[in-house]
Amino acid sequence: MTKSKTNRQFRPVGVPDVSLSGFWGKWQDAVCNSTAETLLDRCVEAGMLRAIDVDQPSPGIVIPIQPWGGTTQMFWDSDLGKSIETIAYSLYRQPNPKLEARADAIIDLYEKLQDEDGYVNAWFQRVQPERRWTNLRDHHELYCAGHLMEAAVAYYQATGKRKLLDVMIRFADYMIKVFGHGEGQLPGYCGHEEVELALVKLARVTGEKKYLDLAKFFVDERGREPHFFTDEAIRDGRDPASFIQKTYEYGQAHQPVRDQRKVVGHAVRAMYLYSGMADIATEYNDDTLTEALEALWDDLTTKQMYVTGGIGPAASNEGFTDYFDLPNDTAYAETCASVGLVFWASRMLGRGPDRRYGDIMEQALYNGALPGLSIDGKTFFYDNPLESSGKHHRWVWHHCPCCPPNIARLVTSIGSYMYAAADDEIAVHLYGESKASFSLANGSEVELTQNTNYPWEGSVEFKVGLKARSNFALSLRVPEWAIGATLTINGEKVDVGSHLVDGYVRLEREWTDGDRLALDLPLALRPQYANPKVRQDVGRVALMRGPLVYCAEEVDNGKDLNAIVLPRQLPAAQTSVLGDLNGAVAVDVEVMREDASDWGTPLYRSEPAKRASAKARFVPYHLWDNREPGEMLVWVQADK
Amino acid sequence: MTKSKTNRQFRPVGVPDVSLSGFWGKWQDAVCNSTAETLLDRCVEAGMLRAIDVDQPSPGIVIPIQPWGGTTQMFWDSDLGKSIETIAYSLYRQPNPKLEARADAIIDLYEKLQDEDGYVNAWFQRVQPERRWTNLRDHHELYCAGHLMEAAVAYYQATGKRKLLDVMIRFADYMIKVFGHGEGQLPGYCGHEEVELALVKLARVTGEKKYLDLAKFFVDERGREPHFFTDEAIRDGRDPASFIQKTYEYGQAHQPVRDQRKVVGHAVRAMYLYSGMADIATEYNDDTLTEALEALWDDLTTKQMYVTGGIGPAASNEGFTDYFDLPNDTAYAETCASVGLVFWASRMLGRGPDRRYGDIMEQALYNGALPGLSIDGKTFFYDNPLESSGKHHRWVWHHCPCCPPNIARLVTSIGSYMYAAADDEIAVHLYGESKASFSLANGSEVELTQNTNYPWEGSVEFKVGLKARSNFALSLRVPEWAIGATLTINGEKVDVGSHLVDGYVRLEREWTDGDRLALDLPLALRPQYANPKVRQDVGRVALMRGPLVYCAEEVDNGKDLNAIVLPRQLPAAQTSVLGDLNGAVAVDVEVMREDASDWGTPLYRSEPAKRASAKARFVPYHLWDNREPGEMLVWVQADK
Repeated sequence: MTKSKTNRQFRPVGVPDVSLSGFWGKWQDAVCNSTAETLLDRCVEAGMLRAIDVDQPSPGIVIPIQPWGGTTQMFWDSDLGKSIETIAYSLYRQPNPKLEARADAIIDLYEKLQDEDGYVNAWFQRVQPERRWTNLRDHHELYCAGHLMEAAVAYYQATGKRKLLDVMIRFADYMIKVFGHGEGQLPGYCGHEEVELALVKLARVTGEKKYLDLAKFFVDERGREPHFFTDEAIRDGRDPASFIQKTYEYGQAHQPVRDQRKVVGHAVRAMYLYSGMADIATEYNDDTLTEALEALWDDLTTKQMYVTGGIGPAASNEGFTDYFDLPNDTAYAETCASVGLVFWASRMLGRGPDRRYGDIMEQALYNGALPGLSIDGKTFFYDNPLESSGKHHRWVWHHCPCCPPNIARLVTSIGSYMYAAADDEIAVHLYGESKASFSLANGSEVELTQNTNYPWEGSVEFKVGLKARSNFALSLRVPEWAIGATLTINGEKVDVGSHLVDGYVRLEREWTDGDRLALDLPLALRPQYANPKVRQDVGRVALMRGPLVYCAEEVDNGKDLNAIVLPRQLPAAQTSVLGDLNGAVAVDVEVMREDASDWGTPLYRSEPAKRASAKARFVPYHLWDNREPGEMLVWVQADK
Repeated sequence: MTKSKTNRQFRPVGVPDVSLSGFWGKWQDAVCNSTAETLLDRCVEAGMLRAIDVDQPSPGIVIPIQPWGGTTQMFWDSDLGKSIETIAYSLYRQPNPKLEARADAIIDLYEKLQDEDGYVNAWFQRVQPERRWTNLRDHHELYCAGHLMEAAVAYYQATGKRKLLDVMIRFADYMIKVFGHGEGQLPGYCGHEEVELALVKLARVTGEKKYLDLAKFFVDERGREPHFFTDEAIRDGRDPASFIQKTYEYGQAHQPVRDQRKVVGHAVRAMYLYSGMADIATEYNDDTLTEALEALWDDLTTKQMYVTGGIGPAASNEGFTDYFDLPNDTAYAETCASVGLVFWASRMLGRGPDRRYGDIMEQALYNGALPGLSIDGKTFFYDNPLESSGKHHRWVWHHCPCCPPNIARLVTSIGSYMYAAADDEIAVHLYGESKASFSLANGSEVELTQNTNYPWEGSVEFKVGLKARSNFALSLRVPEWAIGATLTINGEKVDVGSHLVDGYVRLEREWTDGDRLALDLPLALRPQYANPKVRQDVGRVALMRGPLVYCAEEVDNGKDLNAIVLPRQLPAAQTSVLGDLNGAVAVDVEVMREDASDWGTPLYRSEPAKRASAKARFVPYHLWDNREPGEMLVWVQADK
């Protein structure tokens, strides 16, 4: 596998250019039928519309100011933004005039709210107008703006309606005046990254490089000395030393981003920053950013990531702790953080296909992000433990409702993570029943159809639709776990190994309408052991099948899941399809089970528990807590 | 082993009646030389003397009111009380006129502080006098009084000085007027139990039954309906439903104590309540209390206790959670809670020797309470995890400084837990180099000398000193772990089994001056496995030797202690004496060790780590973090 060194720039295909059915189609239907409207209802119940409606009195401080100096009410714009973005994507799939009208009404409110100078922010226009731009470190102003920008781009692409896009263009133009090194300008950036990647989206949809330049400015300034947050605090009469998060690592502002090599702080912030950095690296072919990003990538994925692609083990900072510290039952592993990891991974693919990123994107998508949503699209996980004694369940809502719209917008826009295009190349990063259209810069018009029951089965068939014979490269990811993967083109076997470039089969040729490819990815059940430095996983094993992490649930296996012991040599597993779990493939394995029934009264004794043969059923982790509630366990005891 | 059903009443011997050397002598010296004065210094630094000095202005609210409606400043009297109690015990062992003078000065302040009616409380006289007796649920008034009573009794016994005793007698007499079912009386009790056991001590030292009756009143009223805390809240204009601890289980006031069968809530509160209940059961021969206490004892020790005798796994309520929920790295297991368990166990022995209680008392003493103090007596553990990644260390002080004086007063009064006496019987509950005097009600004057290097060695020799031949029974505990224990009297072998009553060798005979007993308790290293329902301990094993739990420390074994795997069949262990650890016996064992060195980059892989033979050193858990700081682990991986 050789690393290609070209300066190709891959950009995700537009969400409208991919239509999904099969696995992802079902999830998108759940969002279209339930989540999209639910999100809006909950935002309204929380009072968010009143907050932006200039015809109503200001709501004032509804959620009290917290010790960190702000309130989650300050991020209401972001909740509305992500909800509108979700609605936009849902409208591609399923027109819904009523929902569209509700979104239009919110957009009207934002237009009326916008100041003459272009500024838009519910809190800093309506509750604390005197505090605008006074505390970028804590107050999420640019973060909110970023989410509204993403919503604006999505809504424009979905409906062709420019109103919100124009609002956010005016805001972005105003930001260009506010931020910089000129006289009276702020050389600052947001404590919670987000606006960087949003400005890249705005630049791509408008074709305006100035928004890229502003994003690059925010990336470049971050962590420089003299430190903006310190100067800002002093200007604002706050003691910089009293920062409740103690260190600028919390927001990855402890050193210039190009010097960063260790993933630290708040997990979602980190993912959004690295996503923005990767976008800038792609757009500017900036190798100095890529060098930092590759080091950060390795740091995260080899020392700080759950097997689920969950990241950020600690609730205290919603983020990272020590290397190899991955507690399972108390895992924070916020849904948003894995969504952010998918964002970052997809942007690391901007400089060319590489399964280092594609494999982790898939792992985090299925096992870190997707658990955040229930099958019916109505309830949400915020934190994602890998072990539960039976008390952890999806929420109807959360006091900080960032995760529900985040997983919803990811699910509804998943097509743009599956496929990316460069001038003369198409990359397929994810597999799933779908149809995608590409207009390549070299003039090729391509329609690519995937027929597959992936991830339940490993066979993936492609049909190439062309108006004319075309030259382009098609790169298909061969996951590292897919030992023995095979490929045929029009029935003829292709040697996968000799075509592998960075873990993708790269097929550069003249394609003909109707060309057919058949990729087979063996989905053997495989044990996963953690590096023994992960103290919480020693003596334990997890099961994966294809990209999916499996877990045991009480509903299938009774109580005391920790009594299950998986044999060292994994026995043949039987699979069955569970109709009540979205057609998921369950796996039944012969195991040993410790027997507590004759243990006796004492809590401790000199003899270990007896063992007996038993059968255990494992189901995909992302589907847990969708049936009868109870215990859940990913890492089961391993025989030695 | 038969359960004796007599109504014997065993009461602990007075602290001055036992002198310690050997193991406990060293610990008492540490308290006498360092801790006792340190406690007082820290109390002074915190401002506690100013708080009770009527010649100085009130300090006001030094520690802000917390969401639970109070502040730890409200318990300052208890900190002073426990410190004076520690000083009192230390003065038995080692006269210290300077320290005694400091204690006298504090007692003078309390005498001056006392109201005409007898009330004494720093907070409710000096900061919020209008709030006296308005919130027994939260405000610790009687708890503070209890600790001052314990101090008063100890100080009187140590020095013969009655001043503090008289202050607290006046306060107790006032309480008798305040509490009851009469017109204008409060049918209440304290949210934090403590005064109950303190009143028993006051009754025993004064011979006044009225204090026993008041203690019994508090015990009897607890949890009755209509609920005092609910009525009190309404009277006080508070919403009873807004109780921050959510349930009266927090203070074991959710049902009448005689109906309680499950150990719940705040661990220290629970232990203090059960101690008071056991005292009342002993003094009144109240079997209805004993029935509840025995059920609670089993509930705690068979479902909710760490192998260390640590209890209360959760920080959130400083207490109990679910059955078998015993996380090791996040264990709260407050030092005070294990001190309280020692209190309770010793009082369960009030109705006669029974190793059910004696064994656990010893286990909790050595492994749950004693770790709270460093060898030099200068630093303190508040919470006691059974696993540390290297960041958990003893504190110089704590924002809630309850634990330092609690372990210090236990260490300095340990003699009274070792021996107890009934009318014609002496019970030896704990072993250790010491000399004890008894004046039995039947007229026997006995001096009992223990010569032993226990707990490092298992041989214990007793010499009986008598002025005249005497008839009494001597009961020596044979711990359940001491398989093959032997005993000789004056060189003649005694059949241990045939003399065992409730786990004690009971020797009822005419004793002669100079009689010698030699008890041998085999200290074989033994593995301890947890009931597999304890999910945190599955696949793991702990090591005990005699009463001591052992652990591995990084200073002996390097990093990554979780890589150590103990073989199923424990190999012969080598012992050695560590001079730098108070002469502790360390244990070296042949183990396997997982090797992460060739693991490679990925965090997860399909092959488990290789193993290699290695040696591991285990040291007594109570001594951990006394050398170079680093990782610590009690439950190591077990081969299966």
